Formats: sequence, C-alpha cells, structure tokens
Amino acid sequence: MYIEKIQSPADLKGLDIKALNIVADETRAAVINRVSKHGGHVGPNLGFVEATIALHYVFNAPEDKFVFDVSHQCYPHKVLTGRASGFLGDVDDMNAISGYSSPAESPIYDNFEVGHTSTSISLATGLQKARDIKGTHENIIAIIGDGSLSGGEAFEGLDEASELGTGIIIVVNDNEMSIAENHGGIYKNLRALRESNGKCEHNWFKAWGFEYKYLEEGNDIEKLIGLFQSVKDTDQPTVVHIHTEKGHGFKPAVENKEAWHWGMPFNPIDGSRPTGPAIETYEELFSNWMLAEMKKDPTLIAVTAGTPAAAGFSPAKRAEAGKQHIDMGIAEEQACAMASGMAKGGLRPVWTVYSTFIQRTYDQIAQDLCINSNPAVINVMWGGCGTMNDITHICLFDIPMLTSIPGLVYLAPTTCEEYFAMMRWAVAQDKKPIAIRVPSNGVIHTNEKMEEEFSFEPKYKVAKKGSKVAIIAAGSFYQKGENVVKLLKDKGIDATLINPRYLNEVDATTLDTLKANHQLVVTLEDGCKDGGFGERIASYYGTSDIKVLVGGIKKDLYDRFDVTKLLSDNRLLDEQIVEDVLSIVKG
Amino acid sequence: MYIEKIQSPADLKGLDIKALNIVADETRAAVINRVSKHGGHVGPNLGFVEATIALHYVFNAPEDKFVFDVSHQCYPHKVLTGRASGFLGDVDDMNAISGYSSPAESPIYDNFEVGHTSTSISLATGLQKARDIKGTHENIIAIIGDGSLSGGEAFEGLDEASELGTGIIIVVNDNEMSIAENHGGIYKNLRALRESNGKCEHNWFKAWGFEYKYLEEGNDIEKLIGLFQSVKDTDQPTVVHIHTEKGHGFKPAVENKEAWHWGMPFNPIDGSRPTGPAIETYEELFSNWMLAEMKKDPTLIAVTAGTPAAAGFSPAKRAEAGKQHIDMGIAEEQACAMASGMAKGGLRPVWTVYSTFIQRTYDQIAQDLCINSNPAVINVMWGGCGTMNDITHICLFDIPMLTSIPGLVYLAPTTCEEYFAMMRWAVAQDKKPIAIRVPSNGVIHTNEKMEEEFSFEPKYKVAKKGSKVAIIAAGSFYQKGENVVKLLKDKGIDATLINPRYLNEVDATTLDTLKANHQLVVTLEDGCKDGGFGERIASYYGTSDIKVLVGGIKKDLYDRFDVTKLLSDNRLLDEQIVEDVLSIVKG
Repeated sequence: MYIEKIQSPADLKGLDIKALNIVADETRAAVINRVSKHGGHVGPNLGFVEATIALHYVFNAPEDKFVFDVSHQCYPHKVLTGRASGFLGDVDDMNAISGYSSPAESPIYDNFEVGHTSTSISLATGLQKARDIKGTHENIIAIIGDGSLSGGEAFEGLDEASELGTGIIIVVNDNEMSIAENHGGIYKNLRALRESNGKCEHNWFKAWGFEYKYLEEGNDIEKLIGLFQSVKDTDQPTVVHIHTEKGHGFKPAVENKEAWHWGMPFNPIDGSRPTGPAIETYEELFSNWMLAEMKKDPTLIAVTAGTPAAAGFSPAKRAEAGKQHIDMGIAEEQACAMASGMAKGGLRPVWTVYSTFIQRTYDQIAQDLCINSNPAVINVMWGGCGTMNDITHICLFDIPMLTSIPGLVYLAPTTCEEYFAMMRWAVAQDKKPIAIRVPSNGVIHTNEKMEEEFSFEPKYKVAKKGSKVAIIAAGSFYQKGENVVKLLKDKGIDATLINPRYLNEVDATTLDTLKANHQLVVTLEDGCKDGGFGERIASYYGTSDIKVLVGGIKKDLYDRFDVTKLLSDNRLLDEQIVEDVLSIVKG
Repeated sequence: MYIEKIQSPADLKGLDIKALNIVADETRAAVINRVSKHGGHVGPNLGFVEATIALHYVFNAPEDKFVFDVSHQCYPHKVLTGRASGFLGDVDDMNAISGYSSPAESPIYDNFEVGHTSTSISLATGLQKARDIKGTHENIIAIIGDGSLSGGEAFEGLDEASELGTGIIIVVNDNEMSIAENHGGIYKNLRALRESNGKCEHNWFKAWGFEYKYLEEGNDIEKLIGLFQSVKDTDQPTVVHIHTEKGHGFKPAVENKEAWHWGMPFNPIDGSRPTGPAIETYEELFSNWMLAEMKKDPTLIAVTAGTPAAAGFSPAKRAEAGKQHIDMGIAEEQACAMASGMAKGGLRPVWTVYSTFIQRTYDQIAQDLCINSNPAVINVMWGGCGTMNDITHICLFDIPMLTSIPGLVYLAPTTCEEYFAMMRWAVAQDKKPIAIRVPSNGVIHTNEKMEEEFSFEPKYKVAKKGSKVAIIAAGSFYQKGENVVKLLKDKGIDATLINPRYLNEVDATTLDTLKANHQLVVTLEDGCKDGGFGERIASYYGTSDIKVLVGGIKKDLYDRFDVTKLLSDNRLLDEQIVEDVLSIVKG
C-alpha cells in the first residue's frame, strides 16, 4: 500500500506514473470503503481521483491554494492530505472526517467550509486578489463541476476572474452530470467543446476572455499531469476543461449516475443496498399526487433547481410528467423568478426546495415573487433539526428567513392530510405566493376532517381547549406539543393545545382569547428561534400579563449535531418543557 | 404634439418614420421634464427612447409581453402606455407614476414590479413557459441593460432561456455603462462585438446557443424597426444586441454618464443642480476615512457591487484608491464571497452595500462568509425608514435578515464617532465577519469618549440609569429614544436609556439588571420589527415580570410611503411612544 505512507501531497512528488496509478487505485478503494460503510457522495468523488492526484503532483499545496466547489469531489483530496483514516478506519474514524471541504479539519489544505454549490470561483478570486495585493506568486486553483456551473454565483465568479486578468486556474470537471442530468444552455457549449476536442466555433470560456485548454482523457493521470504543468504559474485567467467519468472505476455508479451521486451505505461488491421495510415519505406522496393532478390540469408544473429527488421526481416520474416537470439546473434564483413568471402567465408552479437551499434566493422570493403577489407555491422540504446536520446544510433557518418577507404566506402542516389539504388550496388559489413547510418528522396520519379552503389571514386551530397553560406547537413539533399536553395532564394541568398552521403572522384573535384563563403560552417550532415564530408571539403578548416561553433552537453554527443532544441543550425534550412550564406556573 | 394623442402603443402603428422621430423628440422632452422636476433615472431612459418606440411599433403589447430589467429604461414605455401625465403634468401627477415597472399602475402593459437588477430574463422565461404550455404564440421580450448582465440571476436566466429552446427575444441594451463603468469579463466580449459589428470570433451569446443580431445604431428608429421586425415571431432563443448612447439627446448626461445615471431635480437647460448648504454625509466621511487608512495599510480594500456611490467613492476617489478599490459589477453574491476570500487571504475588505440590496446575497453571507468566520466587514447603508421608499427598494429588512444568520456580528452605531470607532475595530480584528448598520438619520456627533475595542459578545451601553421604564433604542432610532426619555421626564418618569449597539444577540447581563427596578422595557429599531431586534428582547423577558413594548415597523409591502405617516401608523412618533408607555405603567 502506498496510500498509508502518504501523509501529505509532498509524498506524491517522487512517485512515477505507475506508482501514481497504484495510488489512484488505492484512493478509489478508500473512497468506496468509506461511502459503502458510511454513505456520502459517490460518483463525483470517484470521477475525480486521477485529477486530484495530478493536481497535488503538479501544484504545491498548501502554498498553492485549492478551492473545491460544493465539496462533492474533495474525498480524494482528503485521502491525500492526512485524512486517510476517515476512509480506511472504522465508522468512528469516518465520522471524525466530514464529507465537505473543511478548514476546521485541515486548516492547511482546506481553504473554506463549502457545501452549497457554485461558490468556488468567487471564493478563489478573493485569494487571487489577496495574492496580487501582497505581490506573492502562488497558484490559485478553483475546482468546479459542470453541474455547479449553472448557479449564478459561479457565473459572477467567472465574470470577476476574467476581469481581474491575473493568474487563476479554473478546473472545470465535466462529467456530463449535475446531481441529475444537466439543464441549461451552457451545457450545449460544453457538449460542443467535448465533441470538438475543445475546438468548437464559439467557445463560451474564450468569449469570456479566458485562456482555455481541453483534455478528453480526464481520468488519465499522465495526461492530466501534462495539462496541469502546462498552465502552472500562468499569469492569465485560465480554464482547464477536463472530461471525466462520474463514478469512474465502480460499475454500478457508472451505469446509474443519478442514483449514485450520493447515497447511504451499500455492498461494495455489487452496489446493492440493504432494503428495509418500505416507509411512506413525503417525496413519494407528493410526486404521486402531483402526477395525478397534472393529468387533470396541464397548467400544473413541478419545478426544481437541480434536486428533483427532493420532490420524489425520479427519472421515470420526470418522464411521465413531461413538459410539466422543469429542472433549472442548480439555479434557485432562476427557479423562483421563473415560477413567479409562470404563475403570472397562468400556470400553477410548485417549486420544491430543501430548507438549506432556499436561502440561495432570498431576494427573488422577496422581489420577483412576493412584491408581485404571483400565486406560485413553494414546497419547503426537510426544515427542522431531524434532517441534514452538516454545518453547510443546516435546515433551521427557513422560518426566520421566510417569515420576515412581506407578502408571503408560510404554512406549517402537522400531518399528511393537513399537508395535502393546504397544498390543494395553495395550488387552487390565485392571489398570493404560498410556502408550505413539509413536516420533517415522518409521515403522520390523522382522521381529522380537513378544511377545503384556508384563509390568507392567519387562523390558528385550537385542537384542545384547556386553561392556565397553552401550547402553540407548529409543524413538525406539533406532536411534541401533544406529548407535552399529555405529560402536563399527569401533573394536573389541563393545557390548551394549538396548531398555529401559519408561521408568517400571529393570529391576534386567538391569542387574545387565551388571555382570559391562561397564565403561560409555550411556543414550539422546529427551527432557529432567533427571528422565528415564537418570538412574534412573545412580542405580541409583551405588554400583557401572559407569560411566554419560546421553544426553539438557539441560533448558532452547528455541525454534525446529535439531535437528542441538540434538543436537550435547547430544553426541548418533552420532559424539559414540562419541567420549565411547572417552574413558571407553580405560583 | 403627437405625444398627447398616444393613449396606447396602437396609436404609433399608423405613423411614418418622420412622425415617429417627432414622437421620440417629444418623449425625450417629457422624460427630461419629469426628471428635471421630480428626479429619477436620467441617462438610461434617454438612451432607450428610440428603441422603445420601435419595440412598440413592431410588437403588439399587451398581447406581446415586455419585461423590463431593473426598470431604469422604462420611462419612455410609460409615456407611450397611457402614463404621459406622469411626465408632462405637475408634481402631483408625477408622484402618481412610479419610477419603476409596475402592474399596480398598468396591469396591461407592465408585467412585473421590478426594481432590483438582473431579473428580466428569468421572469420572462416564466411567461415563455406559460405560453408554450398554453400553446399560444405571443412574443416574449426581455429588455436588459449591459450593466444588469453582470448579476447571477441574469446569467441563470440566459442559461434557462437557451435551454427552453423556444422563442424569446432578449434585447441587450448596451450603453457601455452600469451605474458606474462596467466591471466583469463579459464586457470584454460586448466590446469585441461592438468593435466587430457583431462578428467577433467567440460570441458569448452564440456560444450559449442564442440566435444573435447586432445593431450599431441603437438610437436610429428606422434601423431598430427593421431589426425588431426581423426577429418578430421567432421560435428561437434570440439575443438582439443594440448599441445605444446613455443620456442620448441631453448633453450633460452624455458627457458625464455616471453623474447622470440617476439624480435629483435639475435645470433642464444646462443640467445645473441647485446647490444647497453643504451637509456632512456618511458617504463622504467613510470614503475619506478609507482613503486615509488605505495609505497606511495596503491590505485595506473598498468593495462595491456596482454602487460605488454608496460608499462615497466618486470616480476621483476610485482613481486615488487604485487597486484598493474593487467593483464587481452588479454582483452582490460575488462581492460577498470574494470579500470572504480576500479576508481569508489576509486582506481587510470593507464591502459597502445598500440595505435593500444586501438581501441579494443571503446565502453567501451565511455560507461563504459566516460559516468560514472570515473577518470581512459589511458596511450597510441607508437601513431604515428615512431613505428609499419605492416598494422595490424598501430598506427595512436588513435587521431581520442579518440577525438570523449565525456567526455574524451586527452593530448599530448611534453617532458618527461611534460608527468610526466600531469601523476601526471591525477592520482591525481578525476573528469574525462584522456588519455595521450606518446611521441613516443624518450625521450626528457626540463628545462622548468611545471605546477602542469592542467585544464579540453583545454588551449594551447604559447611557442613563433610571427606573420603572427602560428604553432600548438602537442605531438610527437612538435619538428617538433620547427624545422619549426627555418627554417621560416631564411626565414624572425617570427612564433608563440604553444604546444596545449589538443587534445580533441580546445582552442577557444588562437585561437581567433591569429586572430589579423596571416594569417596562421599550425597544426601538428603525426597521421591520417582525423577526427583528425587539422581538428577541420580548422573548428574553417572556417568562419574567418585565413587560416589553416592541417598537418597529410592521412587516408589509410598503410603497412610496410618507415617513411621518408610517411612523404614526406604527405608533412610533415620540409622543405616541410616551402615550403607550403611560398606558402600560400607569398602574
């Protein structure tokens, strides 16, 4: 094994091509070892093994600076920069190494914490400017996948890199895929460049003022080394376009690139994944519902910005939806603005987006959509503490963000039936943009009768009338509210339980009625409480005699947290809430 | 006069070229009449008179749909679509017509409320998709200036327009300027296209898959008509690149394009503007301070995304700053991410941005900057109710937005001296990103001694110790707090006055000390109170006996509001606050 002797990229320098190829095999095996046991990004990392080795062979990190886009291709880099234990060790070792570029982990070799797409060029231009001001001469290398090129920030970064006019090397890792297939006009040009071996008539990068080099054999270490040597120490903005194979060296990942972009643990021999009991998911339920509705209404459009799986739109379902499914590429701003335009034009777009990515389009929600009151629907997935937990993918901020944008209704259903009732209404109405926070605590059913029509004005639902204490429990934390009410019952308190349904505004009427026979209102929300739902209620009651205990998660930079510990630290375990209630209402 | 007879674009159809040129002269005179009396966008509108007439002559609005980018070039369109009164009438008539594309004003001819840059193509693709789904055949025409092309959303829009593959016409109005000069690699290609009459080797638009036509004479109605006729009813994504002159037909605006992009009223004969008494501005003070500091520290960098005037960086000051001033073009995402990269690389970037535009880069602040804890400084201008008041430019939302992002310190100085003390500290420290909300209520001085060092933890400053009532008055509303304290004194209440200085977190220590001898805390913030500063304090005190009155502006879609009325509607006039305090503490 070579790989165990490679403590830093310097250890690659003395090796010949044959040895480097063995390192590649070992690195690939290490990556497969990790993802098969731990899960993670499979295809993009496997395709970038050879390029990573060639980059570290040619350039001199840490003096030369690498900036990885979205980090989907940084595992080989981690293996070669002192973190092989996260790939060869046991699951604890693997947990110690994140799936993303992380200076917290390696301040020398990782320049930025990165997990959202399309940022590498912009970040690298900052290092470039710093180098130019300081008068040093290190290479600045941004590594970006073709999929990430569709994001506005990547375009802005290219625009600035060209403008600066000094040396920067942008490695475009073209594996012909985003998470799903690519969408966007730029991919026509990438295809033309691939098919012409980089020589097609109108070169998008050259048009932008870049020096440009193409390499068809993007998984050939020797050729990659030659390529990178030819641009090393350039004083020009330079694009190096390499054609790689997503999933290279692992047959299942090559054969089904979308399914193997990211995944849970699997059998490394045949790629099979353990099948557990089938459970209902909102992804599945939503996509089935949409497909059925689409057949009745040709104006209903499913929208995604590069993450069709968030809405359950598998390749087969996308094919079934035909023109009624649209994928913008990883371009959330476009998705939001185009949804607004579609709604204006008489369509009924439903844009599904993960909580962590909705923050990529604050201004478009505020300006393109809400100021225009166009009736597009935003389906917010995975909001809450029980979903993604890497520092770059925290799903706790959609409530503060969306509820501070005027003109947007933000609904928080508590059950499957309530979710679809709200969705049916949101799609049918033509007055306003409506966002819906899909429950993230599993699919929970109810027999309760649902309303057909909702109001644009907030109207809380009093599920149970009690006195002294009222629990207002929103969305995914509603069942927590139910639990707390039960536990309080045992303590002799007959608490009121409220499903607020609306996150964007308080229902003053309902809140006022509580004043008569309640001392304490407890709010519960599955998200960041700073700027969130509960604080509005605390503010509403601020000058009254009602006390308010705001339950939510304190704003902070969380990384790979344990959910129970997070809840406990925020006094959100059922028993803790009861304890806190009793300490307040004891008098 | 022709113009008074033109009630709709249909009235242009029967005119010959000579008559259309007279309409152009009259339209230009109308635009100059408005901007000279009312202020507004001068140069971009004057350059687009002929193109607007040709567009309305060739296309059939409202069936054919125009989408104007940022609206800086929509005045001639307003003149020709039934809103000439806003240009020819008295100041009240002018006030009735906004400076932006507005369906509220003309639901037939204006498709979207637009005021932020780079949105037109994305919005238009939505109309395009709606048309394609419905099977109709109207023309969809997006009109975008060269300056607006540098924003990420415009790139994403181009990418999708090409992908859709059906008819859309994108008119690139190239006047060789943003608000200031253009910045970005794309402008190299626009120049090459202009210099080659549209025939240069690598055409950026053709690389992207667009049909492309160029017209050098962008202020020649006859040629414009020919051009637009040649693309009318196209079934291909098409870019029409026209070279216009910013300020065309008004000499002062042609000679100094940056100064005449937008402006206050002026003498229409010679362009002179009334000179009032010189008043201090933060723009002037900040740029002077930066220039002085830059000479001492070559790593200090002034950053702007297309709005150098926001930081007082006039052309002369930019020249003086040299490489220490950087303008990204209208690309806030890039500005934020690059600032993070610069800080990582050892520079000291200070990015100045208007409150209304900071929302164009939420994710970059959260991800590229704050997760990475890079010590860039954000200088937030004009936050508050006393600045811009068009629905598209409201400056009330920066507090809810920035204070819900973990890892960011958000400071609110109350005086000039405090502002610079905070700025000096923010620039000197190397631990965290710091945003500073520059006071927007004029430059107010103090003799108070300022700290040299601030803490990363919130530490409120108790300006005056009293009892019963405490006023916590942030930033631009601090002087309102002082007034309220004075008025309360007359009513026999010796109130405490606190300058919180930190908006991002509460200072629990100071808040706890108030519990001993206060009944009521009043918070005052010059911004949207939903999700803002005061609600955190209401939440903090939620389970205590302290009452909290949260003073701020209710979240809503405001348009061209009167400040005093807005304050009054929100019970924020000094006397109203006193009245409300007395109604609560009377007991």
